[in-house]
Amino acid sequence: MSLNTFGHLFRVTTWGESHGPAIGCTVDGCPPGIKLSEADLQPWLDRRKPGTSKFTTQRKEADEVRILSGVFEGVTTGTPIQLMIENTDQRSKDYSNIAQAFRPGHADITYHQKYGVRDYRGGGRSSARETASRVAAGGVARAVLASLAPGLVIRGYMVQMGVVAIDRGRFDAAVIEDNPFWCPDAGMVEPWADYLDGLRLAHNSVGAVIEVTASGVPAGLGAPLYGKLDSDLASAMMSINAVKGVEIGDGFAAAGLTGVENADEIRMGAAGPEFLSNHAGGILGGISSGQPVVVRFAVKPTSSILTPRATIDGTGAEIDLVTKGRHDPCVGIRAVPVGEAMMACVLADHLLLDRGQTGGVRGRIG
Amino acid sequence: MSLNTFGHLFRVTTWGESHGPAIGCTVDGCPPGIKLSEADLQPWLDRRKPGTSKFTTQRKEADEVRILSGVFEGVTTGTPIQLMIENTDQRSKDYSNIAQAFRPGHADITYHQKYGVRDYRGGGRSSARETASRVAAGGVARAVLASLAPGLVIRGYMVQMGVVAIDRGRFDAAVIEDNPFWCPDAGMVEPWADYLDGLRLAHNSVGAVIEVTASGVPAGLGAPLYGKLDSDLASAMMSINAVKGVEIGDGFAAAGLTGVENADEIRMGAAGPEFLSNHAGGILGGISSGQPVVVRFAVKPTSSILTPRATIDGTGAEIDLVTKGRHDPCVGIRAVPVGEAMMACVLADHLLLDRGQTGGVRGRIG
Amino acid sequence: MSLNTFGHLFRVTTWGESHGPAIGCTVDGCPPGIKLSEADLQPWLDRRKPGTSKFTTQRKEADEVRILSGVFEGVTTGTPIQLMIENTDQRSKDYSNIAQAFRPGHADITYHQKYGVRDYRGGGRSSARETASRVAAGGVARAVLASLAPGLVIRGYMVQMGVVAIDRGRFDAAVIEDNPFWCPDAGMVEPWADYLDGLRLAHNSVGAVIEVTASGVPAGLGAPLYGKLDSDLASAMMSINAVKGVEIGDGFAAAGLTGVENADEIRMGAAGPEFLSNHAGGILGGISSGQPVVVRFAVKPTSSILTPRATIDGTGAEIDLVTKGRHDPCVGIRAVPVGEAMMACVLADHLLLDRGQTGGVRGRIG
Amino acid sequence: MSLNTFGHLFRVTTWGESHGPAIGCTVDGCPPGIKLSEADLQPWLDRRKPGTSKFTTQRKEADEVRILSGVFEGVTTGTPIQLMIENTDQRSKDYSNIAQAFRPGHADITYHQKYGVRDYRGGGRSSARETASRVAAGGVARAVLASLAPGLVIRGYMVQMGVVAIDRGRFDAAVIEDNPFWCPDAGMVEPWADYLDGLRLAHNSVGAVIEVTASGVPAGLGAPLYGKLDSDLASAMMSINAVKGVEIGDGFAAAGLTGVENADEIRMGAAGPEFLSNHAGGILGGISSGQPVVVRFAVKPTSSILTPRATIDGTGAEIDLVTKGRHDPCVGIRAVPVGEAMMACVLADHLLLDRGQTGGVRGRIG
Repeated sequence: MSLNTFGHLFRVTTWGESHGPAIGCTVDGCPPGIKLSEADLQPWLDRRKPGTSKFTTQRKEADEVRILSGVFEGVTTGTPIQLMIENTDQRSKDYSNIAQAFRPGHADITYHQKYGVRDYRGGGRSSARETASRVAAGGVARAVLASLAPGLVIRGYMVQMGVVAIDRGRFDAAVIEDNPFWCPDAGMVEPWADYLDGLRLAHNSVGAVIEVTASGVPAGLGAPLYGKLDSDLASAMMSINAVKGVEIGDGFAAAGLTGVENADEIRMGAAGPEFLSNHAGGILGGISSGQPVVVRFAVKPTSSILTPRATIDGTGAEIDLVTKGRHDPCVGIRAVPVGEAMMACVLADHLLLDRGQTGGVRGRIG
Repeated sequence: MSLNTFGHLFRVTTWGESHGPAIGCTVDGCPPGIKLSEADLQPWLDRRKPGTSKFTTQRKEADEVRILSGVFEGVTTGTPIQLMIENTDQRSKDYSNIAQAFRPGHADITYHQKYGVRDYRGGGRSSARETASRVAAGGVARAVLASLAPGLVIRGYMVQMGVVAIDRGRFDAAVIEDNPFWCPDAGMVEPWADYLDGLRLAHNSVGAVIEVTASGVPAGLGAPLYGKLDSDLASAMMSINAVKGVEIGDGFAAAGLTGVENADEIRMGAAGPEFLSNHAGGILGGISSGQPVVVRFAVKPTSSILTPRATIDGTGAEIDLVTKGRHDPCVGIRAVPVGEAMMACVLADHLLLDRGQTGGVRGRIG
Repeated sequence: MSLNTFGHLFRVTTWGESHGPAIGCTVDGCPPGIKLSEADLQPWLDRRKPGTSKFTTQRKEADEVRILSGVFEGVTTGTPIQLMIENTDQRSKDYSNIAQAFRPGHADITYHQKYGVRDYRGGGRSSARETASRVAAGGVARAVLASLAPGLVIRGYMVQMGVVAIDRGRFDAAVIEDNPFWCPDAGMVEPWADYLDGLRLAHNSVGAVIEVTASGVPAGLGAPLYGKLDSDLASAMMSINAVKGVEIGDGFAAAGLTGVENADEIRMGAAGPEFLSNHAGGILGGISSGQPVVVRFAVKPTSSILTPRATIDGTGAEIDLVTKGRHDPCVGIRAVPVGEAMMACVLADHLLLDRGQTGGVRGRIG
Repeated sequence: MSLNTFGHLFRVTTWGESHGPAIGCTVDGCPPGIKLSEADLQPWLDRRKPGTSKFTTQRKEADEVRILSGVFEGVTTGTPIQLMIENTDQRSKDYSNIAQAFRPGHADITYHQKYGVRDYRGGGRSSARETASRVAAGGVARAVLASLAPGLVIRGYMVQMGVVAIDRGRFDAAVIEDNPFWCPDAGMVEPWADYLDGLRLAHNSVGAVIEVTASGVPAGLGAPLYGKLDSDLASAMMSINAVKGVEIGDGFAAAGLTGVENADEIRMGAAGPEFLSNHAGGILGGISSGQPVVVRFAVKPTSSILTPRATIDGTGAEIDLVTKGRHDPCVGIRAVPVGEAMMACVLADHLLLDRGQTGGVRGRIG
């Protein structure tokens, strides 16, 4: 395996398996002089942490992040930042029955086909546990953005659980943090809770759609043609476990619009160009326009379920498999902070591509 | 600007502007010993060529591709392949009114914001004309695939124009090449023609959804976690002009499925594992499973339209802009061969990542 | 083959074979707004051009460079710059005897071993003809440096031909351009001419040592640890045909110094730190210090000579081989402008890494 | 800072500062199925470990390496391998006097100029302590080579200390491990010991030249033109702390040879081509020929010495500086295992480029 790194100048390399001693990542390319401590990162990890409600996996992980390098006397030095999170609640024996069998809809079979060997415990490297490292890296990216692009705000939330979407008319950013679904529609929290509870008790799971927006993004970020801001966001979101689709702005709905409808007309405001609509999701020709960047991604239902499904094992024998272990009935819930983290990393990366390695910092003598 | 290259080992670097002397690309990483000539590439370019029906731009380009390097006595040598396509039908004067103004929904304004200077003629670098280079590179990728993965077939088609989708029950691959829309539903050709004609005459345009499938893909291609096959496909498709969404397999519909429904159950066939469904679109954990790889992408309506839209110019003055020049009323049509080319390039790239630079070729002495 | 690209943000991809229709390169990452025309590049190519004296190959190439993209109305736009140089004086029949045989000391055999097929005409891709593309790219890099780091001066010259070194006490930059050897020691020109003439008439060739310096380099360029300025310079120079060694500052002589001797002591001058010596060659810990950057590289003797040498052919038969064709008796001479070009590219690359993609340019509206 | 990664497919990202809690690296791209444990890596680290003789720094570090990921049940899985080494013997107070001052010949000043902030304790990121991570990664690379290229042997040794070179006629590989200098000339051990002792007691230090050879390298490794095997080796060696020069085969001496002398003539042996000499150092046109690969690099004298040298501090004040702390009088000694590690990494990288991500491993079902 290779290619465990993403980013151009703000580069994140993640490592670790679900049931190994630890997971983590190296953030290479963080500019110097940024205030950073573990206390700045932990809140983001706590949002993704498992076991916080009955709607997520019951694995109990403290998810305490340690900074092992790259920070000196409370500020970044420009050297690589190593972030480590110890695994503390592995129950590897739960996975003995998938050591030789392949869960339908899971990476078990393709890892076997490619590598011939895999750490089956908890899904090993293919586990969503890896996303904790992304969230930690995202915390560093947020610190960079706070320093170099003050006013930039990233916000993620769930807009659809299974077949049930929120009512956009009731969108209220203030309620997102107040419910276990990151739901921006207060009226939808209880229906989703009932819906998911029913699925969970039926040994089933369900998908979701997540939206992440970033406002206050400076115009001019993005590198056409193959480092377009939207292209990099698509790659970043699609790399999250279980994601099957990504769209920017109106996305697939844009296919149904006419050119007259889709044109985001422009007027001149006091502070610069102002757009009368945002079908484009803040990106034109791969470059940010200054409007809010809007990304949505679809998460498939958790493939590890307690309902038996037909499959085979490594010998080719046909079996029926029930996946034990502790799993999220809607893995989309915990994908919200992950999507935010990926947005933060992509924006920090393009900000640094635009401004240079040091983000404009210079040492002086005398 | 930078990042005009895509791919890991099979790397394509494109160059050129819509109204410059030529466009082209360097294909670096093609293995040696592959039969290749201009006659192998030209048919793919002819499929994307403008001016072939009233439903595409009336610009007349021969789009003749020349191989300037990397091929000797009819076979590739493993050295970089330079492909050049001369521009022959520029009408730059059509664009004088956008030299200083920004088309709504177009990259004009963001290129200006980032670079401060742009070749406005025909959209310059942001023109869909660049995709001819991708199609040429895709032709090389197809030659690689034909040699190293015989039996692999890539097929693109339009599944939705504006709000009108095909009837999946009438899907017939045989009719795709017989109509100007790459429509796989013979019954939809005439309705789409009428629909698009109406829009065109109303000085309007419309979006589309394209699907590209690849069958015969070997299992084991893809590099978790940040070179996942689906992640790279998402990046590749999103990098095509006007694309606003990408999905793999069931894509956004997967969000509405339960885990029981979404599981692609597995049985053991004579030649290996057989899946009973393909919700996953042939990719599990970022690695190909051997099932057909299925990608869809949404193309927004052409932003260059003859209907006036409100915008500003470089001085900040508010104006109404009509875009003259020759434009596609549904740019999604010509995106079909481009999507196929990107699929070919991504698959060739991952095949070579898996097999190495030379694809297994070795020189012998004696 | 792959990896025909060098640079991090200022990326140069070269293509082309010695006897193909053309050679060239794509320069991706040049910032926008830089004044550039073919007339700015041609003088650098003319310095490297073959056939200008009896001491270089008699192949006659105009080496006229064309800019095919990336420049609009006399300035760079930030898009990829394609540079093409047509081959006009191929005499491929000269090479028929090496079609199946391997010149000792040449890449013939290893290309065969790796790829199994090669364009043997004039050495194909392994020919020093490829360096014309580097010189063209170096011309773009010089334009970038002239714009972003005015006062930076790059100068290359030969300090040793075969066993005969210049007298450092007679170093005079003013005479470098006045002799066919780029010799900075006027008293050495005639001895070198006699020496090389003797070798040429004896059907022999000889090596050389080239030095390239850059003064006026801003402090702070370089990216520890694996994009160190000296590490990148070593890679760049070693990638030039026939180069077998690279050193920075005192280089191998530094091994013989003590720490007391080697310390470049520092005093405070009016304009900042001043160093009392430059053993380090302007680079400390991989980062430029503001002192002149000094690089030397060793070029082996041309391996294509008229004296017969023992070798084998593709069937494994043992033969004696005489290399016909037109070759440089001291390929080090023409390596001088190539070394300068590589220095320019590496410095431009690190300047842009430090300052960002656009080099600080921003478009304004209103 | 960025670019803390080296390698194309076998990618090593190092992290950590001299006096932080730990250092380490991520090895991404190791193929699956390779036997690997901490016991395989520790012997290489022990060879580089400080404090083993009076000729190296007296810092006492256990340098115990832990594998945190990528290995399952004793074999690699193809996922990233995280290697961590805790720092246990920091004496940061020794460095208080360089917190604000710049050691002549050291990276202190350039880190300050670039980043404006630095971890001055023990040199922070610029310390040679980072090379422990390289040695650990080199251990993984050796395991890969042992599996995929059995018979390949890497050997490093010192050929010159200060102005005193070994006698090549007395070269004996068997004695290299028997003395503290990795000296292959038994008759030179005592003279070097006396020489270095004298320098050490005089509060001085000295440089060295190291040679690293690899025999049994398969023909065909290397990627012209900008991933040449020699170009990558030059970059790798030059990235080691204090290295100022790199040469391949005859290196700078090749400049003094004629083409007749330098030609490595070829005969046909039983097992394939045989070369009658190895001026080229096993690499032709950037590709391995099957002959031993020979690299030499020059290490400058340690810049941290107890003799006062003139310098400035961050306020621009001129001072005389004595560097306390524990330092190697000849840092070249400990560079020997580092050079071997870099050779191993570069060869493993190119082997995988040639053979693909999995090195040819395939999982089977049934």
